[in-house]
Amino acid sequence: MTPKTPSESRTTMTDMVLPSETNALQNLFGGELLARMDRAASIAAGRHSRRITVTASVNHVAFNLAVPLGSVVTVEAAVSRAYTTSMEVYIDVWIEDRYNGKRTKANEAIYTFVAVDETGKPTEVPPLQPETDLEKERYAGALRRKQLSLVLAGKMKPNEATELKALFIQG
Amino acid sequence: MTPKTPSESRTTMTDMVLPSETNALQNLFGGELLARMDRAASIAAGRHSRRITVTASVNHVAFNLAVPLGSVVTVEAAVSRAYTTSMEVYIDVWIEDRYNGKRTKANEAIYTFVAVDETGKPTEVPPLQPETDLEKERYAGALRRKQLSLVLAGKMKPNEATELKALFIQG
Amino acid sequence: MTPKTPSESRTTMTDMVLPSETNALQNLFGGELLARMDRAASIAAGRHSRRITVTASVNHVAFNLAVPLGSVVTVEAAVSRAYTTSMEVYIDVWIEDRYNGKRTKANEAIYTFVAVDETGKPTEVPPLQPETDLEKERYAGALRRKQLSLVLAGKMKPNEATELKALFIQG
Amino acid sequence: MTPKTPSESRTTMTDMVLPSETNALQNLFGGELLARMDRAASIAAGRHSRRITVTASVNHVAFNLAVPLGSVVTVEAAVSRAYTTSMEVYIDVWIEDRYNGKRTKANEAIYTFVAVDETGKPTEVPPLQPETDLEKERYAGALRRKQLSLVLAGKMKPNEATELKALFIQG
Amino acid sequence: MTPKTPSESRTTMTDMVLPSETNALQNLFGGELLARMDRAASIAAGRHSRRITVTASVNHVAFNLAVPLGSVVTVEAAVSRAYTTSMEVYIDVWIEDRYNGKRTKANEAIYTFVAVDETGKPTEVPPLQPETDLEKERYAGALRRKQLSLVLAGKMKPNEATELKALFIQG
Amino acid sequence: MTPKTPSESRTTMTDMVLPSETNALQNLFGGELLARMDRAASIAAGRHSRRITVTASVNHVAFNLAVPLGSVVTVEAAVSRAYTTSMEVYIDVWIEDRYNGKRTKANEAIYTFVAVDETGKPTEVPPLQPETDLEKERYAGALRRKQLSLVLAGKMKPNEATELKALFIQG
Repeated sequence: MTPKTPSESRTTMTDMVLPSETNALQNLFGGELLARMDRAASIAAGRHSRRITVTASVNHVAFNLAVPLGSVVTVEAAVSRAYTTSMEVYIDVWIEDRYNGKRTKANEAIYTFVAVDETGKPTEVPPLQPETDLEKERYAGALRRKQLSLVLAGKMKPNEATELKALFIQG
Repeated sequence: MTPKTPSESRTTMTDMVLPSETNALQNLFGGELLARMDRAASIAAGRHSRRITVTASVNHVAFNLAVPLGSVVTVEAAVSRAYTTSMEVYIDVWIEDRYNGKRTKANEAIYTFVAVDETGKPTEVPPLQPETDLEKERYAGALRRKQLSLVLAGKMKPNEATELKALFIQG
Repeated sequence: MTPKTPSESRTTMTDMVLPSETNALQNLFGGELLARMDRAASIAAGRHSRRITVTASVNHVAFNLAVPLGSVVTVEAAVSRAYTTSMEVYIDVWIEDRYNGKRTKANEAIYTFVAVDETGKPTEVPPLQPETDLEKERYAGALRRKQLSLVLAGKMKPNEATELKALFIQG
Repeated sequence: MTPKTPSESRTTMTDMVLPSETNALQNLFGGELLARMDRAASIAAGRHSRRITVTASVNHVAFNLAVPLGSVVTVEAAVSRAYTTSMEVYIDVWIEDRYNGKRTKANEAIYTFVAVDETGKPTEVPPLQPETDLEKERYAGALRRKQLSLVLAGKMKPNEATELKALFIQG
Repeated sequence: MTPKTPSESRTTMTDMVLPSETNALQNLFGGELLARMDRAASIAAGRHSRRITVTASVNHVAFNLAVPLGSVVTVEAAVSRAYTTSMEVYIDVWIEDRYNGKRTKANEAIYTFVAVDETGKPTEVPPLQPETDLEKERYAGALRRKQLSLVLAGKMKPNEATELKALFIQG
Repeated sequence: MTPKTPSESRTTMTDMVLPSETNALQNLFGGELLARMDRAASIAAGRHSRRITVTASVNHVAFNLAVPLGSVVTVEAAVSRAYTTSMEVYIDVWIEDRYNGKRTKANEAIYTFVAVDETGKPTEVPPLQPETDLEKERYAGALRRKQLSLVLAGKMKPNEATELKALFIQG
């Protein structure tokens, strides 16, 4: 299959924080943001694979910044690495000040999706060809994250996770 | 502050998968499940701290099982370890077969919450006193996960993460 | 069919009151609570019968307590008596104070469900075997409530409602 | 206060059954219909009292007819009797065949509302003056239903419920 | 086909403005009102045609009045003119003061719907027979609006739009 | 005030069509699309003015293409002309084929917004400086559309609408 670049799957979802999505402090619920990121990432994975895609896992997500009611939130997702039937998607979230337009990075997240056919069976996806420096850095880091996933799920022994092990020994 | 046990914060949220929560394969959207888990975990963190709680991070979540429209889903959350102002919450998700009642573990997730006052400033929470074997195991693992979080966020050097390092060297 | 106990159908649905569910006084809408109770009761009826269940009627429900935005609400439902194809489900609702954790009974409700097959035709359900004193009391009261239902619907003459008649004559 | 007629509070809410409101049989959830009826009845109570109104109780509601996805549902509510600070609201629900326009009565329900001021304290409402035969019949029945409510809530002894007692003794 | 009158399709949808439908000023979002008007107009078009109807276009809609949270909004829709397979629907929106009951016209809108069969193919609808003066005036204006639509969509040359041209030349 | 270009307000909102947004033919409800376009256009108007913005009017919108469940829809909005306190926003909607990624123009719409302060009073906005040919064409057309709006609202006499009149006389 012909490789695709991250910009071919890049998905921009700008929307407001609505009153029905806020918690007792009038800020966006963490859960609502997780759901928005899932939809944007799922579209990015669909653009890369041109298949139905289902969420396989969510990696570490940190909520660094409260997102107040009425904020304009931009969720940007692009495939950061592709394997045989799965794709890692990197998601960046910005909020925008209503009055001065300043964009602030609110958080980053990494989701993994699997491409499936109409019966739910995994199907092959094209490889990813990173272009920019940031895309290359995220592509390289993906393998380390995949090993971490497998170790945490008990599907790989820590001492076989060569990429990860190096990190802690050299660190 | 008097320690509390996990059973004091345990929160059970049983609900159906509604048509508005499903994707193109008629299964529960990953994002919807993330939002439900966030609400259940937030209640558990609130029961432990008796404070407003805000989502600080989501650790690795694996979606092992598709959850079809009409399923009965049980999300069970309990605090697994408490720090000064933050709490790790462990979440187990089961689905239940409509016809034979068999419960299947659909996934596990770990979220971190911070207790805050009405102005959003972090406030102290009680320590956690695990009781059962499973609770003790999750309590012990929490420190390793916290170091992983800090390393991934660039707030701790890998070689200072003693718990984590041991895992890869001995592994 | 083998009888089942109320604890086999007991369903716990703990969730927050979200901003989208509140009225002009910032309290949970009566209608939203009715919908939550319906979902919990429907799951309880499904656990007893292992069938699709449809709401047949709602008995008297009193809203004794306003439930403010941000409250943690627990809806607990269990089958209280089973007939040939229908089940009475008893629902208890508690709210929990965010700061001291005190649980207060907010209201009680009784719904009736019918078990149906995929075409919507009523199908048989197992009998109920009450265990605790409260379960026995609710089981006994169910017959009186069923007669009341039939009388109110014009399907039974008041003087044939022996259970009910006794209540007013002796009362 | 000047009495008002039922037609002054009559409220018509016609809307479709949307996909997000249906159950596993593709019919309107009982709970969704309860919520719609609550909103319509609350508007009717507000039109009679010109106050904020809160749901006090739901009387017996029977779901006689499944309401399929895409149906046009008309909920019609009007105050049927007013007391010092509370109002009984009678609700009729019809569904309409998409192709031949035939209206079928799907169910009836009776809700009670209390009028409150901005602090939630009950305030006085105008008396009701029924006009048509049906309005007069519903007005007369209201007292019997109020006694039944009080008896069921344990706030009136069965033998003091004169209206109700007569029904069973003569019946 | 037998002609129908506007009153045969007239649809009344009275409902509250819920917290989930409001913007940063606590007023109903323009977009939510557009969606409510679309549902009411679609029911009116369905009552006239007894077919599935799909929105074909929205003509000029002016939002003259902010609609605050908690308001009672009445959307009233009726077919104003019918063509071979399409219908113009006129929509009037009122809001009602909670305390004195005064109704104020909030806005007017005009939508066009097409009647389709189960495969989505346009099908014939009955002609409209206006009765009141207002209905006749709206019926007459519909042709001018249709020409305007066609001109704006580039499907009719301005100088063929005889009804419209007259307006500007005489005006 | 310093003029701004359309690209400074351009807003991209890509999202899926969810099951709760579809009609009886399993296509996106017209009303849901109107609401999405309103949110995107409101963000664009906010980016241009850096103020709270409220929908003032919706011009002609044609729904040329059905948008099926599961489609990826991109709504793109940018300010096309600014007046003293109001802005015209031009909205383009595309749908994207899941399997071959082909983008198709689904419709265009034009909304007008007013910038207001916290009390709802209109406030001044910067002028618009169009750059590309398409932006210049839309800028020029805006005046004609504004006159049409005023004529339709009865606030301008047809023969004073010089831009518009020319169109029909020359046409």
